[in-house]
Amino acid sequence: MSKLETMGAERAKLEETMLAAGHAARAAAAILARASAAQKDRALSAMAAAIRADKAAILAANAKDMEIARANGISAALLDRLALDDKRIEAMAKGIEEIRAQEDPIGAILASWERPNGLKISRVRVPLGVIGIIYESRPNVTADAGALCLKSGNAAILRGGSESFHSSSAIHGSLVRGLKEAGLPEAAITLVPTTDRAAVGMLLEGLGGTLDLIVPRGGKSLVERVQREARVPVLAHLEGLCHTYVDRTANLDMARKIVLNAKMRRTGICGATETLLVDQAVAKTDLAPLVKDLLDAKCEVRGDAATQAVDPRVKPATEQDWYTEYLDAIIAVRVVAGVEGAIAHIETYGSHHTDAIIADDAKTAEHFLSQIDSAIVLWNASTQFADGGEFGMGAEIGIATGKFHARGPVGAAELTSYKYVVRGSGQVRPG
Amino acid sequence: MSKLETMGAERAKLEETMLAAGHAARAAAAILARASAAQKDRALSAMAAAIRADKAAILAANAKDMEIARANGISAALLDRLALDDKRIEAMAKGIEEIRAQEDPIGAILASWERPNGLKISRVRVPLGVIGIIYESRPNVTADAGALCLKSGNAAILRGGSESFHSSSAIHGSLVRGLKEAGLPEAAITLVPTTDRAAVGMLLEGLGGTLDLIVPRGGKSLVERVQREARVPVLAHLEGLCHTYVDRTANLDMARKIVLNAKMRRTGICGATETLLVDQAVAKTDLAPLVKDLLDAKCEVRGDAATQAVDPRVKPATEQDWYTEYLDAIIAVRVVAGVEGAIAHIETYGSHHTDAIIADDAKTAEHFLSQIDSAIVLWNASTQFADGGEFGMGAEIGIATGKFHARGPVGAAELTSYKYVVRGSGQVRPG
Repeated sequence: MSKLETMGAERAKLEETMLAAGHAARAAAAILARASAAQKDRALSAMAAAIRADKAAILAANAKDMEIARANGISAALLDRLALDDKRIEAMAKGIEEIRAQEDPIGAILASWERPNGLKISRVRVPLGVIGIIYESRPNVTADAGALCLKSGNAAILRGGSESFHSSSAIHGSLVRGLKEAGLPEAAITLVPTTDRAAVGMLLEGLGGTLDLIVPRGGKSLVERVQREARVPVLAHLEGLCHTYVDRTANLDMARKIVLNAKMRRTGICGATETLLVDQAVAKTDLAPLVKDLLDAKCEVRGDAATQAVDPRVKPATEQDWYTEYLDAIIAVRVVAGVEGAIAHIETYGSHHTDAIIADDAKTAEHFLSQIDSAIVLWNASTQFADGGEFGMGAEIGIATGKFHARGPVGAAELTSYKYVVRGSGQVRPG
Repeated sequence: MSKLETMGAERAKLEETMLAAGHAARAAAAILARASAAQKDRALSAMAAAIRADKAAILAANAKDMEIARANGISAALLDRLALDDKRIEAMAKGIEEIRAQEDPIGAILASWERPNGLKISRVRVPLGVIGIIYESRPNVTADAGALCLKSGNAAILRGGSESFHSSSAIHGSLVRGLKEAGLPEAAITLVPTTDRAAVGMLLEGLGGTLDLIVPRGGKSLVERVQREARVPVLAHLEGLCHTYVDRTANLDMARKIVLNAKMRRTGICGATETLLVDQAVAKTDLAPLVKDLLDAKCEVRGDAATQAVDPRVKPATEQDWYTEYLDAIIAVRVVAGVEGAIAHIETYGSHHTDAIIADDAKTAEHFLSQIDSAIVLWNASTQFADGGEFGMGAEIGIATGKFHARGPVGAAELTSYKYVVRGSGQVRPG
């Protein structure tokens, strides 16, 4: 065979593998949809136990990934995301147990009512079906996403980053062992068994109509590609360009504590504040200490003229800065004309992810909360709370900024649909 | 200018008009999202009043459409859909008043809880934004869809069928008068001001990112095109291939009454039963009367061998019949091996729209209700109840069979999203 023919044959074989995975997942989804809460929870417990028992094998697989990654000269930040140790493996097992501890969303009666003709109507929660998750280097997503899909009665098809392929395969092995122990089909959680990038395109096409949803977890270029090319619904956020606005009625001590945390606790997460807005009415008193805290914490500050005036270390901000999600120790700072100025700035430059107001005045705060059209709006709290775990959902598969289906943190309950069950006694429709 | 240049210039002009409509709708949506329930209800009352007051003008516009339609040799069924009279205009006004009488969905707190750290989290209902509705000949959709979108705080961009253009324009004029009287922007309900088919393609592209949702209402070819080409989320159903299954435990009198209604009350609606399944255990006793009722009501019956045996008027069914949504006085009839046989048939051939079981045995019925993966499942009632009005939603913009966002009848509450409002007292995220 010529090289081209070989490539064609390989692609055809991959396509066959992927389609078979899709159909097996759909068959598994039909079983999961009818599985009892107890059976799913039994599997989750067994999965957590298997991860603990398989620790040595998972660490060995991870060492292989780390070695390849180092040889490829991957950045320290990416190496850190990829690395597993005893603590991170225990955290994975605990995460599965936390998901297990959540209420089972399936079968819940979301609403029920009776019609004048005696028909009894209920809206009952059902799973979505088969969910494809495309992610990058963190191997723990394999466990989180697999467990969340199982809890919500969905089959999962996982496509991890090629750098974490050995780690994810080992973790996936533990998950499958847990599924088997509880008598659930292996195909309930499938890991795409190749690092071939063509597999991603096949997932985006929907695997012959077997995929119901795709969740991309990773950088902007991955999410952009998925949103552009997917032929199935997508839950995602492209950017977390989050704002914290300090109002004239803010308690300065509270504002300093929150702003520092919102920006610097972790700079690489989507809920990190990227732009600080300060009410012009308190710029004279509040701007300097807020900026000083950030600079002292080794955060680069890019400010408008007023901000530049308070400290020589402040760099000038350009129009582009208001549009930038740094995901780094950099912040843009701007003085605005009160809450209306803040709302106008956020609606112009924001990404509708998470935005906060620091204010003592309830009327101003409630105005901000109602006017800002973002998935999460906060009053007197750090934007870093934008997280399913912090919301009490046990875990999240991601955060969505679209308005369709689910918005904000996506936990087990958000990975569901519903159906209408109507019970009658012989009613026919008149007219 | 050459003909091609003229076409290019016309297309550019249409594109400009459509984009401007999208941006105006988005600006109106921002106002609607903050409008009070009282203001929206005032507009709905004024809209109903305006339709009644403008009756003569609407009838005159409709006469023009009817004249053109007759000249174009349009079928009697389509002419009937297009025709307006005093009664239908009054029904339109009443429909708006029924939508007005529904509870305002916007601002409702869907859930709220407090975290151990004192953060108070609420999930609050918000509108989707701008909804595009693409429909065919029924002019009343203009009033229904406009009113439903307004009630749910969304702006609407309506694209009616070219045959009903004059009628829809007249009705739209009345709606706009109602909006103005309540101080709401005209662009809250926009009617695409042309019959140029290129406008549909522009809607499917999303009007420069201004559209949040498209709802197609019409035949399979329209819905298919929208689902294939739309770059924005779509709520729709392609087919209503609905089944009624008569179990061995069915009360025969009830079954006869329900089957006749489910098929023949109206044959052209999506909730009409297309296939009748009869339990083999009672085929000897129940099949003949069920089939005779249908034949006597002038319904063509296409049956399997067992069904053909009960009456010489029964025609043979082919495999294709089990896949066919007739939307006509034709029914496919098959004898199946009990409830499991019915479930297997429906899951193989059905469209996940609406399916019913007639049975006295509760265990059998509940098994069917849980196993059938359709938007609506019914026990001892006619599939023709698949309708937002019959569900008590006041009205529906359509029925969705996808699992994403909304399933079943789509009323005002289903045309919404939510946001998370988090109220704190200085909380920062640890760790």
